[in-house]
Amino acid sequence: MNDRAGKPETKKPLERWLSAEVLPAQNRPIHQWRENEAAERQDPVVMEEPFEIRVNGRNLAVIMRTPGSSVETDRELALGFLLSEGIISRPAQLEAIVRSRDADGLPEENVLDVKAPGVNPFDRAEGADEASFERRFVVASSCGLCGKNSIQDACRRLPPLAASQNSFKVQPATLYNLPDRLREAQAVFEQTGGLHAAGLFDFEGNLLLVREDIGRHNAVDKIIGRQALDGNFPLEGKILLVSGRISFEIVQKALAARLPLVAAVSAPSTLALDLADEGGITLVGFLRNRSMNVYTHPGRVQN
Amino acid sequence: MNDRAGKPETKKPLERWLSAEVLPAQNRPIHQWRENEAAERQDPVVMEEPFEIRVNGRNLAVIMRTPGSSVETDRELALGFLLSEGIISRPAQLEAIVRSRDADGLPEENVLDVKAPGVNPFDRAEGADEASFERRFVVASSCGLCGKNSIQDACRRLPPLAASQNSFKVQPATLYNLPDRLREAQAVFEQTGGLHAAGLFDFEGNLLLVREDIGRHNAVDKIIGRQALDGNFPLEGKILLVSGRISFEIVQKALAARLPLVAAVSAPSTLALDLADEGGITLVGFLRNRSMNVYTHPGRVQN
Repeated sequence: MNDRAGKPETKKPLERWLSAEVLPAQNRPIHQWRENEAAERQDPVVMEEPFEIRVNGRNLAVIMRTPGSSVETDRELALGFLLSEGIISRPAQLEAIVRSRDADGLPEENVLDVKAPGVNPFDRAEGADEASFERRFVVASSCGLCGKNSIQDACRRLPPLAASQNSFKVQPATLYNLPDRLREAQAVFEQTGGLHAAGLFDFEGNLLLVREDIGRHNAVDKIIGRQALDGNFPLEGKILLVSGRISFEIVQKALAARLPLVAAVSAPSTLALDLADEGGITLVGFLRNRSMNVYTHPGRVQN
Repeated sequence: MNDRAGKPETKKPLERWLSAEVLPAQNRPIHQWRENEAAERQDPVVMEEPFEIRVNGRNLAVIMRTPGSSVETDRELALGFLLSEGIISRPAQLEAIVRSRDADGLPEENVLDVKAPGVNPFDRAEGADEASFERRFVVASSCGLCGKNSIQDACRRLPPLAASQNSFKVQPATLYNLPDRLREAQAVFEQTGGLHAAGLFDFEGNLLLVREDIGRHNAVDKIIGRQALDGNFPLEGKILLVSGRISFEIVQKALAARLPLVAAVSAPSTLALDLADEGGITLVGFLRNRSMNVYTHPGRVQN
């Protein structure tokens, strides 16, 4: 691999790589609840944006990721992805990793072009032999690209919640109890520490359903699928609680199921907030110790 | 949707769905370290297996998931995935969700067939218009199917580590310090609580590199990619520490990078252990409070 794809121009000290130069977080307005009091303030939220890797001009993968302070972070992500997924076995197979440019020659923020003569991952990705160990699918998002556009696109496909769902209100004290109720109902987590959990509640705080999985998206899909199998779809007037973080894809799933409130014990991403905002979903994060942050559509949380 | 795809045969009480009947965990042998003492015992490990969803006879997705106690859990996962990913918008679009059968008519454990006349997700998945919001990729694993076979396949593609890597030894006390060193170096987590971190260390416990991302696979890929950009690939004689769980895919990435020791603050899955065992990787979980579980190739951890 030549310098264009490889080393940074000047040798950076070790510290350069031990922490991000610019924190990939944005301040967002929140309603911060402590017990029964809410205050409006700003809080940093970790950034999430889609990132596209093209190999020899063709899309290989779209990955939801936290961007860095420069193109260098995306170059390492692209190269690491290609190596760790076995698309290439040696860095020397690459000729260059460069910022993609659009038809007008302008750089595309979230797209990298990998030039790798002789490498063709697409034969394998589209191979018809399903039993082959060469078969390879691409971990990718279900949205389009590039921040704002992807949000608008997602919302075009999934219209915002009906205004009738604004009538659902929940008290802070009711929300504060949900994480304990989820934990009590979890079958496996306490034993193995290995599972994500998702819980479905009504606006009175009654637990309706719990599902666990090694994948947090799976736990949410199991909730939605079980409700649908039982004749309960869409999930209007219900609350979804997840044990981990709230990513864009969790909100996208909730919007598809028409869930008006999504809560998490941990943090949401910027892209999750954007989609919740446009979709009409109340998004609650850091729901723990009788406190929480309400990031979007705070009117559904009232004393 | 008719009964075949829909309701369970008999109405189950609410409790049926509040926790798994059979815990999806397996007991595995571990070396359990407390301070400088190790004891051999059995410990439950959460199960992870690949699961394939076929729509109208064609593979739509392979998802790494925790199986349930019956086919019902997979049916809800499949239906929830189709709804939440927008492949279908109403359960009634499905005619049936049934266990797949092989050429001899025998049920395939980890494959479900979805019969949905008039639904064609493949047009969209393979659409050439990259800007379309209909574009849809499939979240899927990079391995084959069905537990043991996928492990063997993965190991055929990725040979086990060279025996020369058995000479790398680390003391328990050195490992106990790694999580604190990772946390100290994290730039964003303390502020937003939203990021996964991965750290690269040598066998003396020196921190070489830290990366963070909203996706834990991305944090590992950034580590591997940065090292490769700096001319350090493969990563023989290095230790990878991740802030969360260890899934099959994390071990697969570590094996591709030839990392001999992978550690996590939280739990591994069964499939992660199986691949680490066959690949020659020492897998350490629950690395916290001056204790840990060593699941595979324990010889690299010595006083």
